[in-house]
Amino acid sequence: MNDFDTRSVKLHEHHHGKIETGIKVPLETSDDLSIAYTPGVAEPCRLIAEDPNRSFDLTSRGNTVAILTDGSAVLGLGDIGPAAALPVMEGKAALFKAFAGVDAWPICVDTQDTNEIVGLARLLAPTFGGINLEDIAAPRCFEIERQLQDLGIPVFHDDQHGTAIVLLAGLINAARLVGKELSDLSVVISGAGAAGTAIAQLLRCVNQDPELCVPVRDIIVCDSRGAIHARRESLSPEKAAVLAYTNRANREGSIHDVLEGADVFIGVSVGDLLDAEDVKRMNDDPIILAMANPQPEILPDVAKAAGAAIVGTGRSDFPNQVNNVLAFPGIFRGALDVRAPRITAKMKLAAAFALADAVGDATADRILPDALDRSVPPRVASAVAAAAAG
Amino acid sequence: MNDFDTRSVKLHEHHHGKIETGIKVPLETSDDLSIAYTPGVAEPCRLIAEDPNRSFDLTSRGNTVAILTDGSAVLGLGDIGPAAALPVMEGKAALFKAFAGVDAWPICVDTQDTNEIVGLARLLAPTFGGINLEDIAAPRCFEIERQLQDLGIPVFHDDQHGTAIVLLAGLINAARLVGKELSDLSVVISGAGAAGTAIAQLLRCVNQDPELCVPVRDIIVCDSRGAIHARRESLSPEKAAVLAYTNRANREGSIHDVLEGADVFIGVSVGDLLDAEDVKRMNDDPIILAMANPQPEILPDVAKAAGAAIVGTGRSDFPNQVNNVLAFPGIFRGALDVRAPRITAKMKLAAAFALADAVGDATADRILPDALDRSVPPRVASAVAAAAAG
Repeated sequence: MNDFDTRSVKLHEHHHGKIETGIKVPLETSDDLSIAYTPGVAEPCRLIAEDPNRSFDLTSRGNTVAILTDGSAVLGLGDIGPAAALPVMEGKAALFKAFAGVDAWPICVDTQDTNEIVGLARLLAPTFGGINLEDIAAPRCFEIERQLQDLGIPVFHDDQHGTAIVLLAGLINAARLVGKELSDLSVVISGAGAAGTAIAQLLRCVNQDPELCVPVRDIIVCDSRGAIHARRESLSPEKAAVLAYTNRANREGSIHDVLEGADVFIGVSVGDLLDAEDVKRMNDDPIILAMANPQPEILPDVAKAAGAAIVGTGRSDFPNQVNNVLAFPGIFRGALDVRAPRITAKMKLAAAFALADAVGDATADRILPDALDRSVPPRVASAVAAAAAG
Repeated sequence: MNDFDTRSVKLHEHHHGKIETGIKVPLETSDDLSIAYTPGVAEPCRLIAEDPNRSFDLTSRGNTVAILTDGSAVLGLGDIGPAAALPVMEGKAALFKAFAGVDAWPICVDTQDTNEIVGLARLLAPTFGGINLEDIAAPRCFEIERQLQDLGIPVFHDDQHGTAIVLLAGLINAARLVGKELSDLSVVISGAGAAGTAIAQLLRCVNQDPELCVPVRDIIVCDSRGAIHARRESLSPEKAAVLAYTNRANREGSIHDVLEGADVFIGVSVGDLLDAEDVKRMNDDPIILAMANPQPEILPDVAKAAGAAIVGTGRSDFPNQVNNVLAFPGIFRGALDVRAPRITAKMKLAAAFALADAVGDATADRILPDALDRSVPPRVASAVAAAAAG
């Protein structure tokens, strides 16, 4: 273990994890107990039994989100199982509370069966005001999220949409800075998993309110075999669905081939994928958002030297970090505040534009707000709440 | 609504429930974030992936209990469903934290199917250090608890065993005060549901270490049709199981009939069941523990006037309140402290004796500690931990 890992393990050991139950009511006197527990709870219980909606204001439910994972696609670690995913989920729960006052609790489940996870989420729904799906492998994550949209509470897969929203916010500012319209951009996405698919969807505003919709000119999504195009054999159903709204010119070839003339490279794949020649092959003032972790698809200094106008990564030690913490706390805050039954594409777009605006005067090294800026989540929340209501 | 109910509803509305997520680690700086979340979580995740037991010390799991209910038998309210049960579960979670530092979270499930509840508990096991089953109707509660004893973490139905443990503690002191041996007591229990069955089991030390076992002389369990005896037709499997270790003389008749000559009446049934004549029919110095809520089976002043030596109820406005809060926080504290895989009968008996001893000099109006006495849970915890290890 290096020093950093040792410090992290010591912190986790010392505190025995990162979250705990807090108490919001006094429990000192016999009267306190009578009100908070028996017999005082009876009347709130009766009111909820008459109208289950009252569970949102008479209990913590309306402010509480389950962070649901099967531990099958944990950031950079892969399929490590539910117990090993707990440190990530606890960290996320702590961020939810610190950044947006949302009470979140990990729910790490000992199954990777889609139906079992969907069934469990349905059984747990009365306990929670929302469900944040986390670190569930594709394509299972798509199906689980899709099946749960009728639950009556928001169910949102952060690895997909949180990433896509922050990415779009950065892209909005990057396009402004290089003087291009979003609708003129030609985009290449490397990675056809959860994040890549969600980014492509958001950039094309699939199923989206046309009023807010800002589709880019074209998108080519690449997986490890290169561009997803019409002549590819045995495409998975998910990739076939992506193809339906991407690669209109039906270009074929490797990622290096299709970068020819592109305005934007978005990487959610593997480190060290690109080199200077790839950047030079792109259109003028290329925008590079290389989010592979821990090693980006191309290092910022290499990309800049080759002519990139703007470079972002997933890392905090480079400028322009695409960090989900900019999105998920405010998104759930806004959705819970207006008791939205789901997170619509309109709400996602509103979050991205609010996030882009939160930067103020963007520069090439500042297309996104700082991940620690506590003024951001309330701005995102209020945009999301307005979009939910509108 | 009366004034008390109005106060309770206002408190619940004002705070939006009673519990929240607390954060145990600093989250101010970029370094804090790197340690608590990504990339710092990776090493704790890896350590747990290698050895899942480490989830108990590297995360909050080892201190966390799920309060699992289907809302089918909520105290005094009956089958009100999962959302309406939330105020009770949140109150219980607050008590777990306030009295024993245990982090608990409600899990209210939208099913009353035994297999679904068992399946859900198995799926959730990696998230929790223990499961407190709560307010689940009999006989389903027996089966759920039985099936989950192999889970590797304690699964404990508080309505059964919490009540039985506190009751036994009170009975230990009551018997001492009237100069009778536990093993000489003839006991009548009114109520053959979750609590009545568990009380009968504990008083007979079913499946119990003989060293700690203090079986009473005999027990007769009554349901609404009177004594459970061998000639009763169509007894449920649960009642037939109770009969196997009770009513050795096979007495028949109503609760009033079988109270003749009894030393102890234990009521977990309905209010206003007994009158002065029933008390007079009992043996010398009768002990009456009438725990029906909100109206006891007989009021203390009526029982005392008829000759009862000691009277306890479930209510805080009379002496000798049999209150589960005396037991469950310390029991889980002790079990979690030694990472016990289950709560054995030996641990339950140890809790009852520790609770009885915690009173100090017992009197007829003080056979149990005060429910607010914070010195009690640590004493119970240490007895339970010792019994788990022994």
